[in-house]
Amino acid sequence: MNQFKPIDDRDIQYFKTIIGEQFVSGDPEVLKNYSKDETPDETLRLLPEVVIKPKTTEEIQQIARYCFEKNIAITPRGAGSGLSGGSIPAYGGAVLSLERMNRILEIDTENLMVVVEPGVITNDINRQLKSYSLFYAGYPMSLETCQIGGNVAENAGGGKAVKYGVTGNYVRGVEFVTATGEMVHFGGKVYKDVSSYDIVHLMVGSEGTLGIITKIYLKIIPLPKERIVLLAPFDDVNQALRLPVILLKEMKILPTSLEFMNHESLCFAYKYCNRSYPFPDAKSHVLIEIDGDDEERVFSLSEKIGNRLFDVGAKEIYMADNSILIEEIWKMRRAVPEAIHLALPVEMNEDISLPIQEIGNILLVIDDLSQHYHLFSPVYGHIGDGNLHVTLAPKQIEHWKKDEPIIRKMFYEKVKELGGVLSGEHGIGLKRRNYLSQFYSPEEIRLMRNIKKAFDPKGILNPGKIFPDQE
Amino acid sequence: MNQFKPIDDRDIQYFKTIIGEQFVSGDPEVLKNYSKDETPDETLRLLPEVVIKPKTTEEIQQIARYCFEKNIAITPRGAGSGLSGGSIPAYGGAVLSLERMNRILEIDTENLMVVVEPGVITNDINRQLKSYSLFYAGYPMSLETCQIGGNVAENAGGGKAVKYGVTGNYVRGVEFVTATGEMVHFGGKVYKDVSSYDIVHLMVGSEGTLGIITKIYLKIIPLPKERIVLLAPFDDVNQALRLPVILLKEMKILPTSLEFMNHESLCFAYKYCNRSYPFPDAKSHVLIEIDGDDEERVFSLSEKIGNRLFDVGAKEIYMADNSILIEEIWKMRRAVPEAIHLALPVEMNEDISLPIQEIGNILLVIDDLSQHYHLFSPVYGHIGDGNLHVTLAPKQIEHWKKDEPIIRKMFYEKVKELGGVLSGEHGIGLKRRNYLSQFYSPEEIRLMRNIKKAFDPKGILNPGKIFPDQE
Repeated sequence: MNQFKPIDDRDIQYFKTIIGEQFVSGDPEVLKNYSKDETPDETLRLLPEVVIKPKTTEEIQQIARYCFEKNIAITPRGAGSGLSGGSIPAYGGAVLSLERMNRILEIDTENLMVVVEPGVITNDINRQLKSYSLFYAGYPMSLETCQIGGNVAENAGGGKAVKYGVTGNYVRGVEFVTATGEMVHFGGKVYKDVSSYDIVHLMVGSEGTLGIITKIYLKIIPLPKERIVLLAPFDDVNQALRLPVILLKEMKILPTSLEFMNHESLCFAYKYCNRSYPFPDAKSHVLIEIDGDDEERVFSLSEKIGNRLFDVGAKEIYMADNSILIEEIWKMRRAVPEAIHLALPVEMNEDISLPIQEIGNILLVIDDLSQHYHLFSPVYGHIGDGNLHVTLAPKQIEHWKKDEPIIRKMFYEKVKELGGVLSGEHGIGLKRRNYLSQFYSPEEIRLMRNIKKAFDPKGILNPGKIFPDQE
Repeated sequence: MNQFKPIDDRDIQYFKTIIGEQFVSGDPEVLKNYSKDETPDETLRLLPEVVIKPKTTEEIQQIARYCFEKNIAITPRGAGSGLSGGSIPAYGGAVLSLERMNRILEIDTENLMVVVEPGVITNDINRQLKSYSLFYAGYPMSLETCQIGGNVAENAGGGKAVKYGVTGNYVRGVEFVTATGEMVHFGGKVYKDVSSYDIVHLMVGSEGTLGIITKIYLKIIPLPKERIVLLAPFDDVNQALRLPVILLKEMKILPTSLEFMNHESLCFAYKYCNRSYPFPDAKSHVLIEIDGDDEERVFSLSEKIGNRLFDVGAKEIYMADNSILIEEIWKMRRAVPEAIHLALPVEMNEDISLPIQEIGNILLVIDDLSQHYHLFSPVYGHIGDGNLHVTLAPKQIEHWKKDEPIIRKMFYEKVKELGGVLSGEHGIGLKRRNYLSQFYSPEEIRLMRNIKKAFDPKGILNPGKIFPDQE
C-alpha cells in the first residue's frame, strides 16, 4: 500500500506561492465537491486534503517536482463527469483540477487540427468549430459538461463511435508533465507518426496515472450537413441484434450511431422524462443515425435502412429528419443512464465491450441472472461497436450484499468467455480495479504495473486507480 | 553498450531440440540472407549468428526464456521488406524469423475480424477475404511481399491511409511473448477497450523491441466495389499542394489516396518502367483515387474532382475507371522508390511526416538544399496525410561524405520547425536512431527508454534499434 505524506501548512503555503492564494483551497465544502465524480456509487466519495487549480504548464511542473520530492499524492481532475471514479482522490493528497487551463489555443483550419488545453469543455470545441463547418468527432455523450482532458484520460467513447471512433482516434499529439515535473511532448499536427513508441496513445486512456496532460492536438473533420435518425421498436430482440452485421456488412452502410435500449431501460427513461413516446410496449428499441453531406443520399440511405428494418421485424419506424425531432430522440436516449440510476440507486453498473455478434449471448446470460437472483436488468448501449451498458439491481435489497459478488463474478466470467473486456469507454478507475485479475493474468498485470513505474516511479500520480490494491 | 553472449554450439543444440534441426541454421549463405532488409543503404548489413524459425507460440516462449537467461540477443523478423533496418541483427545473436507462423487462424465474418499469425503475407489476408466482399484496409504499398507481423511492428502505412488509416487503426488485439518468455494477450475481437493501458497500440510500431508478436486481431470492413483513379499533371506545384485542403475541407471528399510525385521522381519511374506516360514534362503529378459502392456516386465524385482539378491548374486529367488502367497507374507509382534507388544508390532517403499544409514549405527547403549542394531531389508521397518520401542524392559524389551530415541536420531542423516528425511509416530502426535527439528532448528519450526497460529489462529484444547508442 502506498504511503504518502499528509499535506501540511507548509505544503499549502508552497502551492499558494506557486499558483496564487485563491486557487488553493482546503475549505471542507470545496474538498467535498472534489471528492466524487458521476459514478453511481455512494461509497466512492473520498476527500482530498487540498484542491489546487494551476493555470500554466510551468505551474504544474513546479507542483509535480515538489510533490515528487515530498511524496504527496496528486489526483488530476477534469470536469468530474467520469463514471469509474477516476478523478476521486483515493489516497487524499492534492486534487489538481485542470479547470483553469481552458483555452482553445489554436483552430488550424488549413491543417485540420485544433490545439487545446485539457480544461476546455469538449462541447465548446465544437461550438467554435461550427462556423468553419468543421467538427471534432470524438466527443462523448456527456458533451455539455465533460472536459477534453478527461475525455483523453479515459479515452471516452460516445454515441457516434460506430462511424467516427472514440477520443483516441482524433488525438494526434499531447504535451504532458511527468511525475518528476518534466514537460514532454509527443506527436503534433501530424496524421502519421512512427518516430517513437506510441506514447500519445499510451497517454490516451491512462486515467491520469502516467502524467498530467497539459496540451492536446486533435484532428478535426468537415461537419456533415445532413442527419436523419430512425427509431424502431422490435419484439424479437435477436432480430434487433442482427442489425450491426446487416448494416455494416450486408448493406455496407456505416451509420453514425447504432444504439440499443431494452424494454426496461426505456421504461425508466419514459418515466424520468415524464412523457409518452411511441411504442412503449416493445421489447427493445434501436436507434440509427445516418449523416452525410448530400441530402438526397442521406435520405435514400435512411429509406433503404427503413425498408430493411421492416424486413427484419421492426414493428414500426419513426423517422426524425429535422434537428428538433432528432434532438428529442437523443434527449430520451441520453436520459437513460440518469433515469436508471435514480430508479435503482443500489446497482451493479457495467460498461462491457464484446465482439459485436456476442451481444445476444450476453443478453441471455443477463436474463438468466435476472431470473435466478430476482434482478432488474435495464440494458442499453452502442451495439454498433459492441459496447453495452448493463445495470443489475435487486428487486429485494436484503440479499444483495451476499449476491452481488457472486453475480459479478459469474457475469464477468461470461463476458470474458465471449471474448469481451471489462470496460469499453468508462475506464477501470477506482470502481473496477479489484476485478482486473478476472480479465488479465498476473503477467499481464505486471506488464501494466511496469509501465506505471516507467512513468511514475514513486506512484504519486492518481494512486489507487486501475491496479488492485494487492498483487 | 549491450554485452550479449555469443551463440555457441550448446545454444544451437538447444534451439534444435526445441524447434527441430531443419529450422535452425548457421549456414553462412542463410545468415547473409537474414542480414539485411529493403533499406537502400549498403552499410546496413549485419550478420546474425544463427537463424531460427519457430512454428508455435510455445516454442517462442522457450526460446525467449533461454535467451533471457543466457543474455542472447533476439531480432524478430518478418519478410525483411522494411525500410529502416528494423529487422537487421545489430548485435548478431539470433534472428527469429516468423515466416513459419503463417496461418490465418480465423475469418470471422460476423464480428468482422480476422485472427492471424504474424508470418502471414499481408496480401494473402485480402486474397482470402475477397470472396466475402470484405477486406483489411491497413495494408501498405509493399503488399505482395510484406508480412502482417512486420506491418504491425512498424505500424506500416500506405497509399490508402488518407481514407482508411494505417495498420494500427485495424489492430484490435495482440498476443505476444515477452523478453522473459511469458505469453500475454491484450484486446481481442472488440472495437472499444479501455480496460488496460493501450498496450495493443504500444506494441504497434514498437519495432520488435518490446515483445515478439504471435497473434494479431484485425478489424475488417466491406470491400468497396467501385474505384476510379485520376492522374493530373501540374506545372505550379503549389496548386497541386492545395489539393488536400480543397478535397478534405472545401469539397468534403475523403479520397482513398492522394499522392504526389515531383518531376524528378516521375522521370526516374518512367525510365525504370521503360515506357512513356502522358504529360512527361509536368513539374508534378497528383494521383487521386476515389472508391465506394455506388458506381454512379463514385463517378460523379470523380467528375466533380476532375472539374476542380482543372480550376486549380491541372494541365490535363487522365481518368482510369477499370481495374487494368488503375493497376497501370499504381504500378508506375509503386515503381517510384525502386526506380529512384537504382538511379541514385548513394542517397539520403527520408520518410518525414508533416502538417498537411506544410508540404509546400518543406519543398522550398528541399529546393534550396538541392541548389546549394548540387543534389538530385526526387520527392513523392502521401500528401493527403502529410507523409513525404524525400531522396537527396549528390550530383557529384566527391563532397557527399562531408556534406551529408550537414544537409541532414539542416533538413531535420526545418522538418522539426514546421511541426513535422522523423518518420511517418518506415520507423526509426537502425537507420534513424542516431537522429532521434534532433526531434526529442533527453527527458522524452528517457521516457521511451523506460518503456523499453519495463518490457525488456535486459534489452535482449531487437537491440540497437530506435535508441541512439549513447545517452
